[in-house]
Amino acid sequence: MGLSYLVYPGAHHSRLHHALGCMHLMDQAVQVLRFKQIEISEEEKEALMIAILLHDIGHGPFSHALEQSLVEEVSHESISLRFMEKLNIEFNQRLTLAIKIFKGEYHRKFFLQLIASQLDMDRLDYLKRDSFYTGVAEGNINSKRLIAMLNVKDDQLVIEEKGIYSVEKFLVARRLMYWQVYFHKTSLVAEQLLIRVLKRAKQLVDRGEKLPANPALSFFLIHKIDKTNFDLKVLDTFSKLDDYDVVSAMKNWVEEKDFVLSNLCKMILNRDLLKVKLQNEEISEDIFKEEQLKFQQKHNLSQEEVDYFVFKEKVSHLAYEHLDPIKILYKNGELKEVTQASDQFNLEALSKPVNKYYICHPKS
Amino acid sequence: MGLSYLVYPGAHHSRLHHALGCMHLMDQAVQVLRFKQIEISEEEKEALMIAILLHDIGHGPFSHALEQSLVEEVSHESISLRFMEKLNIEFNQRLTLAIKIFKGEYHRKFFLQLIASQLDMDRLDYLKRDSFYTGVAEGNINSKRLIAMLNVKDDQLVIEEKGIYSVEKFLVARRLMYWQVYFHKTSLVAEQLLIRVLKRAKQLVDRGEKLPANPALSFFLIHKIDKTNFDLKVLDTFSKLDDYDVVSAMKNWVEEKDFVLSNLCKMILNRDLLKVKLQNEEISEDIFKEEQLKFQQKHNLSQEEVDYFVFKEKVSHLAYEHLDPIKILYKNGELKEVTQASDQFNLEALSKPVNKYYICHPKS
Amino acid sequence: MGLSYLVYPGAHHSRLHHALGCMHLMDQAVQVLRFKQIEISEEEKEALMIAILLHDIGHGPFSHALEQSLVEEVSHESISLRFMEKLNIEFNQRLTLAIKIFKGEYHRKFFLQLIASQLDMDRLDYLKRDSFYTGVAEGNINSKRLIAMLNVKDDQLVIEEKGIYSVEKFLVARRLMYWQVYFHKTSLVAEQLLIRVLKRAKQLVDRGEKLPANPALSFFLIHKIDKTNFDLKVLDTFSKLDDYDVVSAMKNWVEEKDFVLSNLCKMILNRDLLKVKLQNEEISEDIFKEEQLKFQQKHNLSQEEVDYFVFKEKVSHLAYEHLDPIKILYKNGELKEVTQASDQFNLEALSKPVNKYYICHPKS
Amino acid sequence: MGLSYLVYPGAHHSRLHHALGCMHLMDQAVQVLRFKQIEISEEEKEALMIAILLHDIGHGPFSHALEQSLVEEVSHESISLRFMEKLNIEFNQRLTLAIKIFKGEYHRKFFLQLIASQLDMDRLDYLKRDSFYTGVAEGNINSKRLIAMLNVKDDQLVIEEKGIYSVEKFLVARRLMYWQVYFHKTSLVAEQLLIRVLKRAKQLVDRGEKLPANPALSFFLIHKIDKTNFDLKVLDTFSKLDDYDVVSAMKNWVEEKDFVLSNLCKMILNRDLLKVKLQNEEISEDIFKEEQLKFQQKHNLSQEEVDYFVFKEKVSHLAYEHLDPIKILYKNGELKEVTQASDQFNLEALSKPVNKYYICHPKS
Repeated sequence: MGLSYLVYPGAHHSRLHHALGCMHLMDQAVQVLRFKQIEISEEEKEALMIAILLHDIGHGPFSHALEQSLVEEVSHESISLRFMEKLNIEFNQRLTLAIKIFKGEYHRKFFLQLIASQLDMDRLDYLKRDSFYTGVAEGNINSKRLIAMLNVKDDQLVIEEKGIYSVEKFLVARRLMYWQVYFHKTSLVAEQLLIRVLKRAKQLVDRGEKLPANPALSFFLIHKIDKTNFDLKVLDTFSKLDDYDVVSAMKNWVEEKDFVLSNLCKMILNRDLLKVKLQNEEISEDIFKEEQLKFQQKHNLSQEEVDYFVFKEKVSHLAYEHLDPIKILYKNGELKEVTQASDQFNLEALSKPVNKYYICHPKS
Repeated sequence: MGLSYLVYPGAHHSRLHHALGCMHLMDQAVQVLRFKQIEISEEEKEALMIAILLHDIGHGPFSHALEQSLVEEVSHESISLRFMEKLNIEFNQRLTLAIKIFKGEYHRKFFLQLIASQLDMDRLDYLKRDSFYTGVAEGNINSKRLIAMLNVKDDQLVIEEKGIYSVEKFLVARRLMYWQVYFHKTSLVAEQLLIRVLKRAKQLVDRGEKLPANPALSFFLIHKIDKTNFDLKVLDTFSKLDDYDVVSAMKNWVEEKDFVLSNLCKMILNRDLLKVKLQNEEISEDIFKEEQLKFQQKHNLSQEEVDYFVFKEKVSHLAYEHLDPIKILYKNGELKEVTQASDQFNLEALSKPVNKYYICHPKS
Repeated sequence: MGLSYLVYPGAHHSRLHHALGCMHLMDQAVQVLRFKQIEISEEEKEALMIAILLHDIGHGPFSHALEQSLVEEVSHESISLRFMEKLNIEFNQRLTLAIKIFKGEYHRKFFLQLIASQLDMDRLDYLKRDSFYTGVAEGNINSKRLIAMLNVKDDQLVIEEKGIYSVEKFLVARRLMYWQVYFHKTSLVAEQLLIRVLKRAKQLVDRGEKLPANPALSFFLIHKIDKTNFDLKVLDTFSKLDDYDVVSAMKNWVEEKDFVLSNLCKMILNRDLLKVKLQNEEISEDIFKEEQLKFQQKHNLSQEEVDYFVFKEKVSHLAYEHLDPIKILYKNGELKEVTQASDQFNLEALSKPVNKYYICHPKS
Repeated sequence: MGLSYLVYPGAHHSRLHHALGCMHLMDQAVQVLRFKQIEISEEEKEALMIAILLHDIGHGPFSHALEQSLVEEVSHESISLRFMEKLNIEFNQRLTLAIKIFKGEYHRKFFLQLIASQLDMDRLDYLKRDSFYTGVAEGNINSKRLIAMLNVKDDQLVIEEKGIYSVEKFLVARRLMYWQVYFHKTSLVAEQLLIRVLKRAKQLVDRGEKLPANPALSFFLIHKIDKTNFDLKVLDTFSKLDDYDVVSAMKNWVEEKDFVLSNLCKMILNRDLLKVKLQNEEISEDIFKEEQLKFQQKHNLSQEEVDYFVFKEKVSHLAYEHLDPIKILYKNGELKEVTQASDQFNLEALSKPVNKYYICHPKS
């Protein structure tokens, strides 16, 4: 959950917990589907378990926050894949089927849906887990029942008719978790600051400054890594990076003489963040300019510098994605998309992206 | 929860639990409002506590199920009121203010809303409680947070802006509980059978039969009670009636020679209920007639008799009631109805009643 | 839990819940043992499940409370056995093996220990369940871990070395539940009153009085049933008896003219019980006589009558029973009784029965 | 919980959680005592809240593990006290009373018992919390009830008679948590390795090696800090130290050429620890020497070096401490120590220290 613990102090659970939780749910899902006469071999089950266990292994420190800060345009999924391929060599091809599923190349299409879709084991675990640890009880979903309602029809993962209210409830809970927890304005600003710390550090290193950092982190500050040069050596260095390196570096950087780097680090470490205003309408350019000017003049900063402290961003969420539909299976064998099946609820409304806008600036 | 334990065996909680739970929530609500500078005197608080403790005391056996079977057109609220008035005499006018609030005659209008409105303590307790005991986790609501978001503006109970997702979630959870639990088709048919048992028993007594029953139950079988003759003596007899009397009577009535009464009782006691089909469209008259005919011929029954076993009913629920709006309070003091305030969710759709139809008939 | 809900209002769970819970734990235990290479055939598993499901079916209304009031010297276990034998005929000998196990006649001795021993599934379920519903958190036991630690050695059910602290904790929790919950002084007096209600009712019927009661209850008031005449017809009548009959009868008997019966019923129904004093020493005969005299003179009662209202009783509990030892299995294959295995805790002390004494008398 | 998460992955809660939890319990305790007519002024309450909030602030990284590694013979309590004194200056003497209580100098002696005794809020919080996060359900205690049973008699904190079973249960649960969780052999060895990492690092620095480390950690590697030179500057540096610094340093030290340091760090980071054997008897000198020799010869190490990898330790726990007795208050005003009050349980046995011994050595 990145820096969400700054808002919800209980949210101290780790990626290991999530990975184990996903595996547990996958185990249940396989049991349910087998019970409903969907054949899944032991080899296929193992592959599903491996794929879900490793699906997030490509996340770097602070999960999504730094996904685009350390490497450029390399998604965490593609890094997960590289890890799986490396492990596949170490484990004598034992992961071949898992990789095939993960890449969407297995002929049974619903296998991928168990790992990556609107009702995959990943979401069922993280929503329940994050709701529990944050104490935001409204985000709690009934993953047990959703799994019990799973079935397969025409090689697609579907939900049986009796589970329709649970799906509705799941979509509403998920939407709530996004706007109330993941996009909590304090988390947003903390994440932006963290991104900017890394960006500034790379900029300074580029300009020839020497910044104290662990070897793994230093590597990513010095080298510009993208798809073209993300080789096995990079993967190995990436695997050594964790939250400890980043926090530890920030604790050192507080002492750096660069105004931007030192102040950004201080803000995060002391939880003394920027002021943030979140709203439905775009941020007015006037207000933005005014805030920039105020801070620029106060500290006599360049435009480049002030952009680190006064900025505006957009956050967007789509509660339901038509391209990856959730299908309801009726007793007569008919399939309907959940947005059509719901007898009253205007789920259609959930398929339009909601945008919110925010501005961050130092407290005056 | 009437006979819901036939479907959800865990649903064994009692009205006493609910009454105590409501009082607990009221206590929290008063604390929250006082903290927000809404003045509530000790005397007012006591009245609120009394009113919520007793708000459901007028329910007879099996709650809503028998509300119209024992007495005619006397709502449980009006019986609750009669009890409060009786207690008011015993307690030397200590309940006067509670009664004023309960009747909606107190000048501070939000007091009544704490007891009877779309966000009253009653609903906050029973949804959470029923969700817990049935195991239908999706119905779980965050009553703690909803109460923390309460405020009063212009003498109306309102929810602060930050609580809007919790209100949405509450409405969705409530709707789910209705369709999945309270209107579970097995509960519906069990309730209909219970109503018909009482109806048949009264009919037989009317015709001069003698049916074994406890004195309190006998009284209501023999006398036709409505608003005009519901006096203190009736109230006293009503107070002695409970689930034990009804179940115990049914256990005796199984042995009665009347085909209708004996079979209806047997169905409930042995949990061997009628077959029920629940659907979105009205029940076709043809199918209905056919089922009636089938059973009538099989047992050689009169039309009156067959109506007890083959019948069709409608069930209707309104997830959001505009006449009793939930208002959202913005930081700038503005008020908006939640259906307008929600930034994406089409809550408007929830304010249209949903009807479902069902037919019950013996298994063939 | 008999009348414990008079003290712990949450304790409203039913025998059905307990029976299902025991089956669930048995299912887990079989899984654990099979995992440890203890062979249990499908047929044997089914028998274990049946035996634990039905082990308590012979309990009458209010469980232990009326065990000796309705029938004389017929234990609930022996009634359970009669039910199983009857069902065995209906189910074409499908219960034969279950019965063999239940009677201790199966050659694999540890099977019976899963159903009836100091660590049987019955206790693991009821302690956890009663602790949960009463809210007495100290009584909570870790049934999951205890089951995970089960093993079989020399055809005995044993606990692996690593589970020793969990066994200690289980014994302490069980002892606590007895003294704090099951032997709560208010439960004790309520139970005694209930026993005396039935005793008085039988006495009056013996003397020729006619008391209103459901047919099943009437049967047991009129007939003196013991081992010698507990035949299939009696069993059938017994099966129809439940709490509803007893409560319903008491509601009628409140109106009886017999001072004893009417007052005892009133006390229970209005939860206006006798005063009770529980102590470690025996009740002094002087105090007892004094209380008897006081009440006798006040109401001008016979000795027989006063004995119903002023009485003294003993309650006794043995926290650990050497005759049915809990054995700890060490890694080297050695077995030790838990009282010897505990490295510090003087568990020996738990194997001496503790007696407490109480006197009940009307409030003055 | 130091490195317990290596055994119990859920044990990821933080010291902040514990500090807030303690404050919450203190708030409840004050409420209970005031309700029982023990006068506690608002000023006194604030002091209690401050004292319990800060009681553990002197812990360094990994809590108890490094208590003696970074500074010598300065307890965490005395460091907590130094922090309070520093804060007292910043907050204009607002902490004076809290400090007085914490030092045991306040005239009302039971105040200190709420913060530091066998039934203090610290223990009530950490046992419940650690039991929850590790999943060791047997360690769960009923802190709510223990607090509800608190009272004050003769200026001592006491437990009312009715709470005696809860105290017994608390002592048993605490003992279980020590032996099963805190002294889990894997936690013990991990902690010993961590201690040795720091010891080795200081040794190398002493010998003139330069080890990469954050400034705060470097300070404590270079300087020998004890009671005599732990001044405000040291305190300031100490306050900057956290788990991040230690883990981050170990990640660097893996690359160091020193065999001992690099291997110890690797063992912890890769969770590939030493083999450990825990037993009731002292470790035989022969076995110890043999293990030392084996590893020494294999890697050609000096005695000093081998002592880092093959060592024996003792662990000791006293379940009940007579010097800080738990007193039971009877209704007649009498006080008894719980070991005397318990009616059966041999609590006396708990007051003898239990020792266990373990040897650690590399896997062969």
